[in-house]
Amino acid sequence: MSAQHVFDAAVALTPAGPDTWTGATHPAWNNMVGPFGGITAATALQGVMRHAARLGTPVALTVNYAAALAPGAFTLSTVPVRTNRSTQHWTMTLTQPGADGVPATVFTATAVTAARRATWGASDVPMPEVVPPHTLERVPIAGVEWVERYDMRPIEGAPPAAWDGRESEGSLSRLWVRDAEGRAPDFAALAAFSDVFFPRIWLRRARRVPAGTVSMTVYFHAGEAELARSAGWLLAQARGQAFHDGFADQTAQLWNEAGELLVTSHQIVYYKE
Amino acid sequence: MSAQHVFDAAVALTPAGPDTWTGATHPAWNNMVGPFGGITAATALQGVMRHAARLGTPVALTVNYAAALAPGAFTLSTVPVRTNRSTQHWTMTLTQPGADGVPATVFTATAVTAARRATWGASDVPMPEVVPPHTLERVPIAGVEWVERYDMRPIEGAPPAAWDGRESEGSLSRLWVRDAEGRAPDFAALAAFSDVFFPRIWLRRARRVPAGTVSMTVYFHAGEAELARSAGWLLAQARGQAFHDGFADQTAQLWNEAGELLVTSHQIVYYKE
Repeated sequence: MSAQHVFDAAVALTPAGPDTWTGATHPAWNNMVGPFGGITAATALQGVMRHAARLGTPVALTVNYAAALAPGAFTLSTVPVRTNRSTQHWTMTLTQPGADGVPATVFTATAVTAARRATWGASDVPMPEVVPPHTLERVPIAGVEWVERYDMRPIEGAPPAAWDGRESEGSLSRLWVRDAEGRAPDFAALAAFSDVFFPRIWLRRARRVPAGTVSMTVYFHAGEAELARSAGWLLAQARGQAFHDGFADQTAQLWNEAGELLVTSHQIVYYKE
Repeated sequence: MSAQHVFDAAVALTPAGPDTWTGATHPAWNNMVGPFGGITAATALQGVMRHAARLGTPVALTVNYAAALAPGAFTLSTVPVRTNRSTQHWTMTLTQPGADGVPATVFTATAVTAARRATWGASDVPMPEVVPPHTLERVPIAGVEWVERYDMRPIEGAPPAAWDGRESEGSLSRLWVRDAEGRAPDFAALAAFSDVFFPRIWLRRARRVPAGTVSMTVYFHAGEAELARSAGWLLAQARGQAFHDGFADQTAQLWNEAGELLVTSHQIVYYKE
């Protein structure tokens, strides 16, 4: 009997009624406060992927992180609110019992899935030319649990060697990344990969100020065929655009080794000081 | 008595119960099918802005366009699903009666508002150096109603002079834009300005293939102080990243004349062929 991969264990859901699932946090994905936001986003999408009424594959996913997930059980609702001929619109909510026992909203999310058709296509953001992953060092284990779930090979914009407050000029990071055990990505995994970047404000300021994702959006350009060609390394790139009065944004891209742009993603991050 | 500006008329809402408003489409904002998506996004945000329980100013807005708005009345719900110390999470839904009289979902949306605090700040996307608006021609009236609501001065990436199918290399557009009557922007107007770009696929292909926004996200970097400095022209920039199997994304930025980055925005657009 083969053991379940820790990603599949984390996004496992049990049907609990129409459009409703139960699940539980998994300690292998712990971040400093609550789980890694990427695994939370993956869980939101997984509820859509497993829904019997789902039409097509994901095109867009937005997760608004309203509170840190507490360790333990949660309830996830995934509702297909409108189904058109080739697109379908979803709303998702994750709740946990609050201090008063009443379910409290931990995140709200929306998704669009679609039956895709072959069309004219192009990429206006070609994969940057970078050195291959085997020539690079794996990012050192930093004592944060979820980081160990990935094999990350920074190319540029690695975490600062010293948190000495020496501001850098830019906020661009590029790295090769794959699941630490080589699990080939599905759509839920792509959602998680979209959040593997440490906060841009840390790179910019070389200071680990308190920071956390408030909202993340993932656009899926990959369909099933592109996924099937993406079992190896992914090239991940992120850059901040604005850092202002406590909130900073980030744009990100994920390519497979063949240079196909699988995902473009955006997030806005709360930060202090 | 001064007449109400056509933007304010379009986003006008009447309280209709807890977290509920009624409104109506306004023909001045008509697009080819249904209203301009920007005015729809502005309406979603306006329901949050007018809500008595609102905390702070907008940080993030996502609108998923599930169907074209039919001309006439609609119902908008704007629910503060979680209020933290300094952030607040919203879900919004707009419905119109379906063919069977039952309310049908036209869009779902989410927003985050926040009480912002002064912090360290920076922009990693400086405003490009461009010629001033008065040296440029206003975009010709194209027979699309909403386009006339704006004074748009293309700098580069203007609509192709001929729809002759000659593919271009890139999908970058830059333009100066302001309300045609000089209305100074509020947050709802910034949401609308985020959607003033014609589809990137049209620019790339010089063909007006059927296309429409499926989901748009707006990150607000401007607070009240920056808004107050943004009464003049806005520099608007958009670029596509991926065009694949019927869906294309777009990243966009809005700066005020002083070069402050007010908004970063993203959308994914359905297209045919």
